[in-house]
Amino acid sequence: MMISAEERRARALLTRIAEPGDELLGRMIAAEGAIGALDVIRSDAVPDSGPTDSGRGDPGRRFAAWRARLPDADPERLLAECDALGGRLVCPGDAEWPSQLDDLGGRRPYALWVRGDEDLRFSCLRSVAIVGSRSATSYGVNVAAEMGAELADRKWTVVSGGAFGIDAAAHRGVLAADGLTVAVFACGFDVTYPGSHDGLFTEIARSGLLVSEFPPGTPPNRSRFLVRNRTIAALTRGTVVVEAARRSGAISTARHARDLRRAVMVVPGPVTSVASVGCHVMLREWGEAVCVTDTAEILDLVGLVGDDLAPEKRGPVLDRDRLAPVTRDVLEAIPARGGAGTARIAVTAGVDLDTALASLGALSAGGFVERCAKGWKLRRRPPDA
Amino acid sequence: MMISAEERRARALLTRIAEPGDELLGRMIAAEGAIGALDVIRSDAVPDSGPTDSGRGDPGRRFAAWRARLPDADPERLLAECDALGGRLVCPGDAEWPSQLDDLGGRRPYALWVRGDEDLRFSCLRSVAIVGSRSATSYGVNVAAEMGAELADRKWTVVSGGAFGIDAAAHRGVLAADGLTVAVFACGFDVTYPGSHDGLFTEIARSGLLVSEFPPGTPPNRSRFLVRNRTIAALTRGTVVVEAARRSGAISTARHARDLRRAVMVVPGPVTSVASVGCHVMLREWGEAVCVTDTAEILDLVGLVGDDLAPEKRGPVLDRDRLAPVTRDVLEAIPARGGAGTARIAVTAGVDLDTALASLGALSAGGFVERCAKGWKLRRRPPDA
Repeated sequence: MMISAEERRARALLTRIAEPGDELLGRMIAAEGAIGALDVIRSDAVPDSGPTDSGRGDPGRRFAAWRARLPDADPERLLAECDALGGRLVCPGDAEWPSQLDDLGGRRPYALWVRGDEDLRFSCLRSVAIVGSRSATSYGVNVAAEMGAELADRKWTVVSGGAFGIDAAAHRGVLAADGLTVAVFACGFDVTYPGSHDGLFTEIARSGLLVSEFPPGTPPNRSRFLVRNRTIAALTRGTVVVEAARRSGAISTARHARDLRRAVMVVPGPVTSVASVGCHVMLREWGEAVCVTDTAEILDLVGLVGDDLAPEKRGPVLDRDRLAPVTRDVLEAIPARGGAGTARIAVTAGVDLDTALASLGALSAGGFVERCAKGWKLRRRPPDA
Repeated sequence: MMISAEERRARALLTRIAEPGDELLGRMIAAEGAIGALDVIRSDAVPDSGPTDSGRGDPGRRFAAWRARLPDADPERLLAECDALGGRLVCPGDAEWPSQLDDLGGRRPYALWVRGDEDLRFSCLRSVAIVGSRSATSYGVNVAAEMGAELADRKWTVVSGGAFGIDAAAHRGVLAADGLTVAVFACGFDVTYPGSHDGLFTEIARSGLLVSEFPPGTPPNRSRFLVRNRTIAALTRGTVVVEAARRSGAISTARHARDLRRAVMVVPGPVTSVASVGCHVMLREWGEAVCVTDTAEILDLVGLVGDDLAPEKRGPVLDRDRLAPVTRDVLEAIPARGGAGTARIAVTAGVDLDTALASLGALSAGGFVERCAKGWKLRRRPPDA
């Protein structure tokens, strides 16, 4: 399941030379792997950009820009720097890769630079994004913090963007409840932006995860914030917008969530508050936007269990029939009574230890198994019962 | 067009002996007129209640109750009392009858007791209901008053129920803007309920209208409030709910509006406010409820003009093709240039003066004609242009 060291180096290099979410590059990687894509970039050829290349400008110029950055880009050094910062590079094919990002198709991240002890994939299986205005009101801050804390209490991960206002309030609510929160940056995970969030990010790195498509040291810019939003939307089962101006990055995240068929949830506010104007526009004009006022309503929409889930509004769902075959093998390797250790389960399922661990994590997040003294055991009521 | 004095007396009597909105009685009136329905009640026969009689209990008992009230009910006295109070009885068939009430079918009011100088029909052609919680917050009161005033500024009539909280705020907002407001009571128009609204109702009676299905002197009760709500919904092109608890009379009005295919509009509020819980439930669970935050958004939904009106959400619409034949005749009798007096228009159209006046009022409300020095002239841009 692990990818080769050379493929990993190639992906590290691509995150340095190309802006994320480039569909042309994404299709090249899908067709030929990261190594093959790099070979094409290094050559003089410019492939046909195809019909779905989304307005990024002339492919020839982009190729030239990527090529121009190659001499200064050293993947070994990037990986060593990341390692020195306590981080790691998570690539498609790694056990830790959040496979829901594959819904982004050609705009899937080339790889993710991650800091924090938690497993990114497990952390995001049951996750919700809470996003909103930087210039939030005390109302919005209170609601975001409360929802963050309550989602944490229910063992849901809260993903946000680490910005002033709603984002920070959501992260802080989770931290106050000793929960797990993931900040997805529009800059390197070692770049503190905004600067005053130093303490917040240190705390998130300690108990949760800092995630970025950009290698350490990359500064943020406007287009990076926008391209980052698709990752927040794709990582999670749904996006909650708490306060947003009429034009707002939070709305762009919600738009990605909608396009990815994740739940789009909107917290209303006083009609007299400019901070809620974007929320009300969404409620008024988006058929997909659902008004939510508390955590229970959020979980109604993104929860794994429950008949009240409209299928169109679901994020990725983990019911038994839809488990990956290898995950189902691992599930069936767990004894009906008592429990078993990971190694024993791996042997019974006929998979290697890493695969068994990845599957068990997924099964745990999906509510099928839980830890016990022996290792792992079946949960009494599986989620599709 | 006017109805007979005997029919009017019969309708006055029916409002005294029967609770409003009785479908069985409504169907009897539709089939045989009010006089005929009274004859049936006076006889010993109880007609088949049919399939659509909506859970009002045994028809035999209702007949017996109506019959029991007959000896004490004197229509001449009721009409004289109403007259002494400065009121009048408006019946189906009268030029002042708001024909949109006919959408209520068997639940149409038998007649309406009205106080105030304005014409009920003209007043309600361009009207919106603003309803909401009795225990409103200052937020809701401010929003309702502001919307009331702004609708009045745009020459829209605001209909509400005269209750504490949102209703009163909406009425007061209109009065402050010198606009036209209509209070629909669940008691006689001379009964001041709540008592402290004495001054408010006096002001409404002076510049707008007090309306009731109940004859003067009738006290309010719970079921009368509920049955009254259908009249508020039916009179107007749409209902705006500003603050409502989870169980609220305002929601019952909105439900009637929805069933009558009027616009259902909801003003959101802070999710931390119990006064807005019902509003958020509607936004969350009713496909028909539209989030509105200001007067422009309300007029988008109920306005006579505009391509943005979803046909299902329209109230009664006055485009040229849908005008009553007699109204179209009157419209065509107005000269293309300059104007003409009412008498001249009536002669040209071949109708009597009352009919011409009623039609001109409707055409004025619909934006087809406007007053001028000579009497009436065509407006430059008719609403379907």
